[in-house]
Amino acid sequence: MSGCRVPKTLEWVGGLDGFVSMIDQTKLPTELVYLECRDPETIWHAIKRLSVRGAPAIGVAAAMGVVLGIRDYAGNERTAFLTKLNEVCDYLATSRPTAVNLFWALQRMKTCADGLTDTSVDEIKEQLRNEAIAIRDEDAAMCRRIGEHGQSLIGDGHGVLTHCNAGSLATAEFGTALAPMYVAFEMGRKFKVFADETRPLLQGARLTVWELSQAGIDTTLLCDGAAGALMQSGQVNLVITGSDRIAANGDIANKIGTYGVAVLAKHHNIPFYVAAPSSTFDFDMSSGDGIPIEQRDADEIRRGFGHLIAPPDIPCYSPAFDVTPVGFIRGIITEKGLIEPVTTDKISQVLR
Amino acid sequence: MSGCRVPKTLEWVGGLDGFVSMIDQTKLPTELVYLECRDPETIWHAIKRLSVRGAPAIGVAAAMGVVLGIRDYAGNERTAFLTKLNEVCDYLATSRPTAVNLFWALQRMKTCADGLTDTSVDEIKEQLRNEAIAIRDEDAAMCRRIGEHGQSLIGDGHGVLTHCNAGSLATAEFGTALAPMYVAFEMGRKFKVFADETRPLLQGARLTVWELSQAGIDTTLLCDGAAGALMQSGQVNLVITGSDRIAANGDIANKIGTYGVAVLAKHHNIPFYVAAPSSTFDFDMSSGDGIPIEQRDADEIRRGFGHLIAPPDIPCYSPAFDVTPVGFIRGIITEKGLIEPVTTDKISQVLR
Repeated sequence: MSGCRVPKTLEWVGGLDGFVSMIDQTKLPTELVYLECRDPETIWHAIKRLSVRGAPAIGVAAAMGVVLGIRDYAGNERTAFLTKLNEVCDYLATSRPTAVNLFWALQRMKTCADGLTDTSVDEIKEQLRNEAIAIRDEDAAMCRRIGEHGQSLIGDGHGVLTHCNAGSLATAEFGTALAPMYVAFEMGRKFKVFADETRPLLQGARLTVWELSQAGIDTTLLCDGAAGALMQSGQVNLVITGSDRIAANGDIANKIGTYGVAVLAKHHNIPFYVAAPSSTFDFDMSSGDGIPIEQRDADEIRRGFGHLIAPPDIPCYSPAFDVTPVGFIRGIITEKGLIEPVTTDKISQVLR
Repeated sequence: MSGCRVPKTLEWVGGLDGFVSMIDQTKLPTELVYLECRDPETIWHAIKRLSVRGAPAIGVAAAMGVVLGIRDYAGNERTAFLTKLNEVCDYLATSRPTAVNLFWALQRMKTCADGLTDTSVDEIKEQLRNEAIAIRDEDAAMCRRIGEHGQSLIGDGHGVLTHCNAGSLATAEFGTALAPMYVAFEMGRKFKVFADETRPLLQGARLTVWELSQAGIDTTLLCDGAAGALMQSGQVNLVITGSDRIAANGDIANKIGTYGVAVLAKHHNIPFYVAAPSSTFDFDMSSGDGIPIEQRDADEIRRGFGHLIAPPDIPCYSPAFDVTPVGFIRGIITEKGLIEPVTTDKISQVLR
């Protein structure tokens, strides 16, 4: 389907006796290592230690981990099998307790099995494998639709700035913020991507520039503080970032640093777009003011690169996310269409 | 003079047979190591490998290096001595070829010796030592005056944001951007300093938070990308940064990232001040458009923390400085007074 060499973040290889192949993202960008996961414990550790990260990718990994956990179940008794399935799901749920997609994927696997009432255990196992693969394929298709709805924003000769990694490596394929770039590239458009390195965890430097350059896209890395000078120099035509949560009014939460990029973009009259699946909208949240912001461990800043770069006890301000008010956002690209302008009416119209 | 425990960046210890003591800034913040420099070669290497950095501090180090280079000169013949002096100056000038203060300090040492026409070689040596110490003391006094002119901007309970290191470690004492903070602290005012880590070279994380916390000032470190969220949270009352060059119209060049901070400050109605000696003004430069911006080696970004954090060949956008237009600057704090508002009339009035 893809004409673009995007990395195979994770996939099921072979039949029910096969395995999950995933890129060990902790080794990037210096080494491209694929993990072969043949049991749920390996999946659990891969999620825990961030070998796989990004909400959609974690969901896919967990669903496939369920299959690994039940395929060797020896009995033929459906109720006992479902008990085993629940145990495996409960176990996998402990790998990353705040990841909503993880719970969603595990629940979907349980619902699938629960619905197969007149089915043999062997047949349920096959169906669960199909369900896990379907979760992956649906995610890939959704990312592609985001890309198709966003690709026309990227013109020939454009410079596109992004922040953090909302790419293939965070999803099954194509990503969210990077999907319009991959689709535009497949269509033969020539453009340049600028990626903020994204301190403290450097997802831009480690992941985004790696996957874009693997795909053959012209990519340049910059420190987060250089985005202003880059915009001032006239090299940026639009910004596209992902989002972790979108409030009902269109305010968005995303990786720390996104808000600063949005303020700079507005000052330079550069359109700022957000790309995210429609499931990112949280209509219980009336505005971004209500979005809780996790504070990260100070050592991610002080020791973020494997050695001490600051006094060991210096206090740090380290929110994981920031909130960009809707007034800074030109449009939101979803799998259901482009929301532009971002008004509650337009949101309802596109997402209904 | 100082009631504030600012670090002794560099000083001459003892008489003509003494030595230069300087903090080895490459060891900060994990170790506080003082280098004892007893010959010009040690000074040359200290400048070259950034054990001492910051334009004023480099000037002082070079001047003291001249003394180390001529004090053991055995002859009594003035002309031959001056030839030796020139050789030492030429040698020290090669340590950091773009540092204007370095050449200025070396020239001042030569001018001092040239002016001593009816003086014995031994007496010239003593006078050169006095001159080097005078250069240091004048710099310290100038920094203190910047601090005195800027201290009233910092009120009780304020949060002050700074970027890069324009502190004691860049000068003989007190620094430029940090001088108002040290003076306000001496006067008993209670406030909080926020320091951007300042990628790629992390002067904020390594130097600024170290020297401020050594002095006992309440200091918090943040990644450059978090400045927007910090301002949005209402914790920043003013910004003070240094400057490497100021154009005649008040545009300023400073460490990459400064412009982004200034745009954010303006958006949040937070006053943005620049602190710099009057010698930073370059009246041959009508605006910031003409200021040449050095591009740094991509490996400062890709390998900035001692190991590879990005694909080894990824292109990087890495300007050393950016230019902040005068429209973003509330005032410029100099040793001659506060320039506010920043107009050409007010600049002339304060600096004349």
